[in-house]
Amino acid sequence: MTDRSAAVAELVAALPEGVVATAPAQLEKYRMDWAKDTSAGMPCAAVRAERAEHVQEAVRWAARHGMPVVPRGAGSGLSGGASAVEGGVVVSLERMTAIEIDPAARCAVVEPGAFNATVKKTAAEHGLWYPPDPSSFEICSIGGNVATNAGGLCCVKYGVTTDYVLGLDVVLADGRLVTLGGKRIKDVAGLSLLKLFVGSEGTLGIVTRVILRLVPAQLTPSTLVATFDSVRAAADAVVGMCRVTRASMIELMDKPTVNQVEDFAPMGLDRDRALLIVQSDAPEGARAGEMELIEAACEQAGAAEVFVTHEADEGAAFVRARRLAFPAAEAKGALLLEDVGVEVPLLPDLVARVEEIGVERGVEVVCVAHAGDGNTHPIVMYDAADPDSVIRAEAAFQNILTAAIELGGTITGEHGVGRLKRDALPAMLGPDVMELNQRVKDALDPQGILNPGAVLDARS
Amino acid sequence: MTDRSAAVAELVAALPEGVVATAPAQLEKYRMDWAKDTSAGMPCAAVRAERAEHVQEAVRWAARHGMPVVPRGAGSGLSGGASAVEGGVVVSLERMTAIEIDPAARCAVVEPGAFNATVKKTAAEHGLWYPPDPSSFEICSIGGNVATNAGGLCCVKYGVTTDYVLGLDVVLADGRLVTLGGKRIKDVAGLSLLKLFVGSEGTLGIVTRVILRLVPAQLTPSTLVATFDSVRAAADAVVGMCRVTRASMIELMDKPTVNQVEDFAPMGLDRDRALLIVQSDAPEGARAGEMELIEAACEQAGAAEVFVTHEADEGAAFVRARRLAFPAAEAKGALLLEDVGVEVPLLPDLVARVEEIGVERGVEVVCVAHAGDGNTHPIVMYDAADPDSVIRAEAAFQNILTAAIELGGTITGEHGVGRLKRDALPAMLGPDVMELNQRVKDALDPQGILNPGAVLDARS
Repeated sequence: MTDRSAAVAELVAALPEGVVATAPAQLEKYRMDWAKDTSAGMPCAAVRAERAEHVQEAVRWAARHGMPVVPRGAGSGLSGGASAVEGGVVVSLERMTAIEIDPAARCAVVEPGAFNATVKKTAAEHGLWYPPDPSSFEICSIGGNVATNAGGLCCVKYGVTTDYVLGLDVVLADGRLVTLGGKRIKDVAGLSLLKLFVGSEGTLGIVTRVILRLVPAQLTPSTLVATFDSVRAAADAVVGMCRVTRASMIELMDKPTVNQVEDFAPMGLDRDRALLIVQSDAPEGARAGEMELIEAACEQAGAAEVFVTHEADEGAAFVRARRLAFPAAEAKGALLLEDVGVEVPLLPDLVARVEEIGVERGVEVVCVAHAGDGNTHPIVMYDAADPDSVIRAEAAFQNILTAAIELGGTITGEHGVGRLKRDALPAMLGPDVMELNQRVKDALDPQGILNPGAVLDARS
Repeated sequence: MTDRSAAVAELVAALPEGVVATAPAQLEKYRMDWAKDTSAGMPCAAVRAERAEHVQEAVRWAARHGMPVVPRGAGSGLSGGASAVEGGVVVSLERMTAIEIDPAARCAVVEPGAFNATVKKTAAEHGLWYPPDPSSFEICSIGGNVATNAGGLCCVKYGVTTDYVLGLDVVLADGRLVTLGGKRIKDVAGLSLLKLFVGSEGTLGIVTRVILRLVPAQLTPSTLVATFDSVRAAADAVVGMCRVTRASMIELMDKPTVNQVEDFAPMGLDRDRALLIVQSDAPEGARAGEMELIEAACEQAGAAEVFVTHEADEGAAFVRARRLAFPAAEAKGALLLEDVGVEVPLLPDLVARVEEIGVERGVEVVCVAHAGDGNTHPIVMYDAADPDSVIRAEAAFQNILTAAIELGGTITGEHGVGRLKRDALPAMLGPDVMELNQRVKDALDPQGILNPGAVLDARS
């Protein structure tokens, strides 16, 4: 028996039957997230924790053996934040799915494996709402949402995950469990460690419980759909409406995206134009005024057509079309998904630059965006069987990251750095901020066992 | 010439004339903030920085000489976060007051010495609003707001300072300046260092520029005033309305507070009862419905009287009365100001316990609260000339901190730990979270020169 297999046997023995998977066939599903990171390794074990103690046991074991630990939620991450490390252990939170609603404190106490959609649904049973809504909300877990500080469509008005996290239980790199925050709304006692763990992509600790703030149920929104001859004009409309409204959704699909979605699930969208989908959930009385301002911004920017509906179903159909952008692109072939963002006034420059990069590199780049946040998802399509296409796609991917940085923007607005964008992070943050990141990482994970190689370089 | 005076001469020579104050008469005003911390020392110098470079120069100098650096905004802090350290240097940001509004990106670029009220006013000139509104908003600076993650009255609906901070320039403990975040709304690239610096009370770095998110101007609110025979009943009403509304202000004054305010500035408040002041800024159409829910919660909790006004001036008069609670207490005599908070459903227990503690200790405790956040400000009154009164007041102060901790709450909701509550922090956070705080502090300020003795123990 090798040292490693002795160590694995120790882990299996320390946890209840069925918690630790070690068979290669079982482990295969714990190797990658949706980023399909080809550098992902084969773990020696996957711990399917059923409670926080199992996570603690696994981390203590890993700390003892100096073993890499990769935490994993639903595996829907898009940046390789949950790629397994060769020979390390994956700690999966998929079995920890409890949700408890406290209507009086207006919060939800949630285990990390619970799906975002289930939290929303459970809150809705109490007339409450958990706003953050990644496009993947039906298949992504709250733990992953916290790990990446996930955004979504309604975030333009309602903020991102961190704005709703009141408390966290976190298993630290040495296996201790700490509780940060709680159901109280305001708390400034000590450093903002709670906020530091949100968005840390499993590099500082493993979240085993989340207390989420809830708000009253959203009003049924009205929806405006506008078409534009150019994606820049659509982005101009976004800049205009962001100055004067608080729309609850501002989504942009460029012409190639519209076409991919129409190919995937035809609903009669105008294939010749870029599309904006804007919603207002302002209360009656303020609704009409806000919709007028949105419409005026579209017309000001030269909209070809504008259509408004107050029917929930009709509006939802357009939002569904928008949510299909990624599946529609996946159905077309191999792709590289971006998540770059800029300040809203620079959105027109960014989308125009993305379009140019596609032309320059001779690859198809389709672009959807949470436009009201300045957060875009250019998708670089390529032919995996054609080495030249792969090279051109990768060049386009890098060019887009560089374009965002040159515009003073970010390489990731909501997906996280993971492993796919790690090498681009220094160019964005610069050496001093990189060093700060590393110092905080070293302070909280001195052995470097937590998700090594995600966000920052792994220790060599 | 002693070593210290040689060092001070070096500092004076390194900065433009008039920036460094060294005369004792000049330094007196840099010794304390509003907490009037009697343990405050006499600094060797105060650097009145006019730009970030001056802050860098001062910190580099302090790092070279191993000298404590206490950053200071407007000096309106209530926890001794800006108490000078004997023989150290105070870096005052009072001269850095520039404000620039970017209406297209909907944000404000603000130097730390700018007053909160001035930011609000400047934003309003563009039809925009900066929500966070500490009671001291007319005399507190944005730098201090960021340092403490300040709250205020509208935070129950609009969130606290951290929710509006998009970017920071920070001078680190070695004098380097880093830029975190920017005008972009969403950004998850790297650890959430931006959020870590917010609320760090000058212990991790000195903020020299802040980018604040702005929102469209608030609608003129409607105001409900309700009186209750007991403070517990008033708190019960708060719990009831928090379940079903998003009021834009929920402030509570207990009977002793009402009496102090009436003594200070008579306006005909009912001296026999506790008072709730609640506002709704919901748009027309939703306004009446929200006000009805608020009223119903008051009646359900047994309100003696309920009064509603839609007149802005009339509503503002009640809010002004609320804002007078602290000055009115100050006018009465010596006081210890608390800032404890609990989850909203436990507010009735907390305010009742606070009342009991006053009786038990034989001291007057008056209590105002940002009740919708569960954040209360009990004020322990005492007679500074009577040693027994001082002892009883201090005991009551500690009892209230303990009561908050026993209810799972916080020792500070918005004022910060500073030096006054430092010794209570371990009891609240426990040894593991204290150690995490210290590890992060050590990682970013290895010499321990930044605001030593605030939040955490100073290095011995």
